[in-house]
Amino acid sequence: MIIDKLIDKIKQTGNPTVVGLDPRREYIPDFIIEENIEKYGKSVKALAKSMLDFNKYIIDEIYDLVPAVKPQIAMYEMYGVDGIKAYIDTIEYAKEKNLIVIGDIKRSDIASTAEAYSIGHIGKTEVFEEEIEMFKQDFITLNPYLGSDGINPFLEDCKKYEKGLFILAKTSNPNSGEIQDLIVDGKPLYEKIGALIDKWGEELIGKNGYSEVGAVVGATHKEQAKRLREIMPKSFFLVPGYGAQGGKAEDLAVCFDKNGLGAIINSSRGIIANHKKEKFKDLKGKDFAKASREAVIEMKEDLRRYI
Amino acid sequence: MIIDKLIDKIKQTGNPTVVGLDPRREYIPDFIIEENIEKYGKSVKALAKSMLDFNKYIIDEIYDLVPAVKPQIAMYEMYGVDGIKAYIDTIEYAKEKNLIVIGDIKRSDIASTAEAYSIGHIGKTEVFEEEIEMFKQDFITLNPYLGSDGINPFLEDCKKYEKGLFILAKTSNPNSGEIQDLIVDGKPLYEKIGALIDKWGEELIGKNGYSEVGAVVGATHKEQAKRLREIMPKSFFLVPGYGAQGGKAEDLAVCFDKNGLGAIINSSRGIIANHKKEKFKDLKGKDFAKASREAVIEMKEDLRRYI
Repeated sequence: MIIDKLIDKIKQTGNPTVVGLDPRREYIPDFIIEENIEKYGKSVKALAKSMLDFNKYIIDEIYDLVPAVKPQIAMYEMYGVDGIKAYIDTIEYAKEKNLIVIGDIKRSDIASTAEAYSIGHIGKTEVFEEEIEMFKQDFITLNPYLGSDGINPFLEDCKKYEKGLFILAKTSNPNSGEIQDLIVDGKPLYEKIGALIDKWGEELIGKNGYSEVGAVVGATHKEQAKRLREIMPKSFFLVPGYGAQGGKAEDLAVCFDKNGLGAIINSSRGIIANHKKEKFKDLKGKDFAKASREAVIEMKEDLRRYI
Repeated sequence: MIIDKLIDKIKQTGNPTVVGLDPRREYIPDFIIEENIEKYGKSVKALAKSMLDFNKYIIDEIYDLVPAVKPQIAMYEMYGVDGIKAYIDTIEYAKEKNLIVIGDIKRSDIASTAEAYSIGHIGKTEVFEEEIEMFKQDFITLNPYLGSDGINPFLEDCKKYEKGLFILAKTSNPNSGEIQDLIVDGKPLYEKIGALIDKWGEELIGKNGYSEVGAVVGATHKEQAKRLREIMPKSFFLVPGYGAQGGKAEDLAVCFDKNGLGAIINSSRGIIANHKKEKFKDLKGKDFAKASREAVIEMKEDLRRYI
């Protein structure tokens, strides 16, 4: 099962970290952009290919240190068709390097529409006599607001294709409480959602006691994460908000179980834009990605002090 | 403002209907598939181009009768890059025919990620010295679970580019109550969300009293729709669930205001798959789409009996 593969890779690297591959134009070194302008002119394709190249250089430097990467599809989707191509190619490259890929897509819909998303993202699309995997992600993120009708079609494909989900419980943004903290039957809504997520995963429990259905739990809300860890014993946590968004390692310890498992912490900007720091200004060409490697090592040490 | 353009087109056609362009393989007549196999072989591209051709034939038959179309991106996304190309080309074709396009994308994210979605879907992407509209939708649908942080970036672009939103309040699926009906401060959650949606649109009110920020309100929940119409006087409703999902015209009247405005009713399958009915089996070639025209006329008459 994919959750067990993820846990195995976390044990093997000793590092519960996922690198967020959310490239922005301003993170990409000029030499990459220039190479692609030469090939494709000043086009959308040149920018999309630059994102892909940028990701490849970073993956080459970090694939032996982390279990997983998490590309954020919005960053690619804003470049239309070429962007989606770069997203898919990034996933393929990461998988060649034996990384687990969490597609951060936060999709939400119902019935035949949810089925279509599921087929495209974690299932297989029928193309005449063939069945083709389109997006090839191992895990995807989903939004639960539509209820079980929006989740069930994905659960089917998780079973069929050994894929996993991370469903939004409590997000890392300052304003997440506006809806997620509303009190329902004396408890905040995110606890209610948390309990649903744990239930959705009931029939998909792996050998480590965690299910294929995990939860997104922001690193910026310590007490709330602690409570969710208690009421969701079977759900692995994907934890955004470390670093740039203000989440600290000492606050993250609550997301883990007594064996040091149970969560994977995402960092995006802090790793992929690390070369923009003054101290790395002498890194030339593709060596820029060595700054990302250094950031991953620092983050691992930071986390291990508390977990 | 785009909401006023939508209302003008509803008045002009006398028809508060939006045609859901959610093509599925089984709806597409064989002659379209065969033409595209000839050009592109038995490929993903052949299927994606078939979806586009199918949409074009239908648009040709209905563009003078309806104000808007609503392509559901999931149906295209499941065909990967080629599918997204077909989605964008469908939008372009619909806009050439002067239709308003509601992109049913139900995206959700925060901060710079929400910004990226907004740029891609209703804003403009910077590509070297140019700014390019990628998806070209007039309206998009969004999921509110992440709170204001997930909506504000889109509001900015609505102002800047005269675009609009429909945010999920109460969805049409049987199980929507699982989360949306939970009681918060003595009221169901969807009312709370409804009030937020109305507030989000406060600074974007058009000449007809409706804002650029509308709400998705399922046709399958009459009493709840009625209540939302009362507490959301400034929000236009996008109403799914008519026809195939069980929503009836007499139940939909509650979504409209005393002037017969305030809502647009979606039908997908009932219109675009109408040619699959036995009585249309003699329609040859591109004439299949005349069945869609007939379905639109029937739906208009059905709605006008009650609104």
